[in-house]
Amino acid sequence: VNTAARRPVIGVMGAAAASPPHVADARRLGKLIAQAGWILLTGGRPVGVMEAATAGAKEVPGALTVGILPGSDDEAAEGVDIAIVTGMGDARNAINVLSSSAIVACGVEGAGTASEVSLALKAGVPVVLLRPHKNARALFRALGPSLVHEARTPDAAIRVLMERVGIAPGPVWPS
Amino acid sequence: VNTAARRPVIGVMGAAAASPPHVADARRLGKLIAQAGWILLTGGRPVGVMEAATAGAKEVPGALTVGILPGSDDEAAEGVDIAIVTGMGDARNAINVLSSSAIVACGVEGAGTASEVSLALKAGVPVVLLRPHKNARALFRALGPSLVHEARTPDAAIRVLMERVGIAPGPVWPS
Amino acid sequence: VNTAARRPVIGVMGAAAASPPHVADARRLGKLIAQAGWILLTGGRPVGVMEAATAGAKEVPGALTVGILPGSDDEAAEGVDIAIVTGMGDARNAINVLSSSAIVACGVEGAGTASEVSLALKAGVPVVLLRPHKNARALFRALGPSLVHEARTPDAAIRVLMERVGIAPGPVWPS
Amino acid sequence: VNTAARRPVIGVMGAAAASPPHVADARRLGKLIAQAGWILLTGGRPVGVMEAATAGAKEVPGALTVGILPGSDDEAAEGVDIAIVTGMGDARNAINVLSSSAIVACGVEGAGTASEVSLALKAGVPVVLLRPHKNARALFRALGPSLVHEARTPDAAIRVLMERVGIAPGPVWPS
Repeated sequence: VNTAARRPVIGVMGAAAASPPHVADARRLGKLIAQAGWILLTGGRPVGVMEAATAGAKEVPGALTVGILPGSDDEAAEGVDIAIVTGMGDARNAINVLSSSAIVACGVEGAGTASEVSLALKAGVPVVLLRPHKNARALFRALGPSLVHEARTPDAAIRVLMERVGIAPGPVWPS
Repeated sequence: VNTAARRPVIGVMGAAAASPPHVADARRLGKLIAQAGWILLTGGRPVGVMEAATAGAKEVPGALTVGILPGSDDEAAEGVDIAIVTGMGDARNAINVLSSSAIVACGVEGAGTASEVSLALKAGVPVVLLRPHKNARALFRALGPSLVHEARTPDAAIRVLMERVGIAPGPVWPS
Repeated sequence: VNTAARRPVIGVMGAAAASPPHVADARRLGKLIAQAGWILLTGGRPVGVMEAATAGAKEVPGALTVGILPGSDDEAAEGVDIAIVTGMGDARNAINVLSSSAIVACGVEGAGTASEVSLALKAGVPVVLLRPHKNARALFRALGPSLVHEARTPDAAIRVLMERVGIAPGPVWPS
Repeated sequence: VNTAARRPVIGVMGAAAASPPHVADARRLGKLIAQAGWILLTGGRPVGVMEAATAGAKEVPGALTVGILPGSDDEAAEGVDIAIVTGMGDARNAINVLSSSAIVACGVEGAGTASEVSLALKAGVPVVLLRPHKNARALFRALGPSLVHEARTPDAAIRVLMERVGIAPGPVWPS
């Protein structure tokens, strides 16, 4: 009952200096996550994939967004409803993945994202690689064959989360 | 604009094995925090002050509650909407206070609560001691004279947060 | 065999802006810890009690000192042999106490020290309060009656560690 | 003067369930690190690469080894001189890399090792990949071209650390 009562949390990970296609993916993905009734979790900073996913989610009235900030006085991205202030730099990446029912990596363009995918696999958290470069796909599939999924579009990533990872849609948002 | 758009987060701290008066305070306090339009943050476990404050907040339709869990596979208290899973034991106490606009300690009956009050003072986060024992009052007032407030009832603690700490009420909850 | 082979680690805690008597205590205490064949652990920064205890230990040829630094690019106190760089601010206080066989607080003049004493009690780590103010003594004795000891001088603190906490002297340092 | 006075710390990372060739590499590498006058840092547990590197280092009289343990009551590998007890699970991987002058990955056979290499690149810490699988080489070279080095043997890894990363040998160990 307890767990069933909580909405799933989907972590969206990606670079602060993400390239435009991955930023666009993040925005669409954030919106779709919110439409699925899920809570969006990101690294919370006002840049790149974090900012785009948050902005996308907030296109959905009533949607809820969490940002896990690395610093102790970071500004959060606009649209972050709940800012968790860790003050522990990239050690917070472990919290990002432990707090997520599953994560989606919008590309693996930076070492921070690679660390989050790695920590997710270590913790047994399912990962969807959204348009990964072949190098990332090859390594992470080898490290976590049963946990790593792949998608070519944000819409496909949502289907993977629902159908293959088994995350049920949440209730409609109050608004 | 950014910060103004986020609801204040009020951390309620207290013992897992709290005595009945402090548990009753926590429940009332949780409800009042939610009625003020603020987000409730606790240590998230299904015991003592954490559980009671969360249950109190959830008496208010639409209220939002966050639990910062110490373990990596802890169960959260019923009523926790967003469970942040840290996997870092009491090091998560630092996150509890950094993520709060202010904290209220429902008694200082355990060493964990004392650590949270101490970490709040170190980080410059305002603290309201709700019915503290004289020993706790004396030490913490000496350590953080400008940050430490005191209240005799949950209702008085809310007034202190609004009038002396300066935390404005949040918008009405959607429901 | 394994544990027996490791030297005890004694954490010395105290304020960055400690008053002269507590700084003097820290220096003497660091030297006595090293003379006992124990490893000194501090918060590692080049100020106050941390710096003084480290300098005291290094008066003993061959002594070993560890500094657990809060930042990711902090400078360590001169004399720190092993700098553990946490990048997690005061969340590192939890590591300080978990890594120590026991801690000695050279006064409780700041909120950081109060957090370390509190976290030690929470974790079951013995604490020696060296010349505490009466407020700190009263609170911490109430929170951890079986774990909290007291001493009026650094030499007495060492006797408490040996005789009441039961920490055996380590082997002579190679030099 | 301060920094110059501290011995370099070399982190050796690798799987708890490492395959025999990587375990053998780790043992040789630990010995060579100690012979270079450097401090060995590992994840501290009594398994796999951590245990082997530590055992290798302790073949050198006077050598110093640090283990950064994930749990709060983990047993450390035999030969660990200083056990840093973090109680924060894989979030401690961030500490492992921040505390090292450089790291050597003995293979990248597990997700934990991949997270440490990733976190090192994020933090600007040089990495030597010792006999990496081609997938790991390709990804990490792409993520951190100026920080990632490669070696085919432990002896070659030491040469890379000295000649390409620029880590000077430490003084002879007292014994």
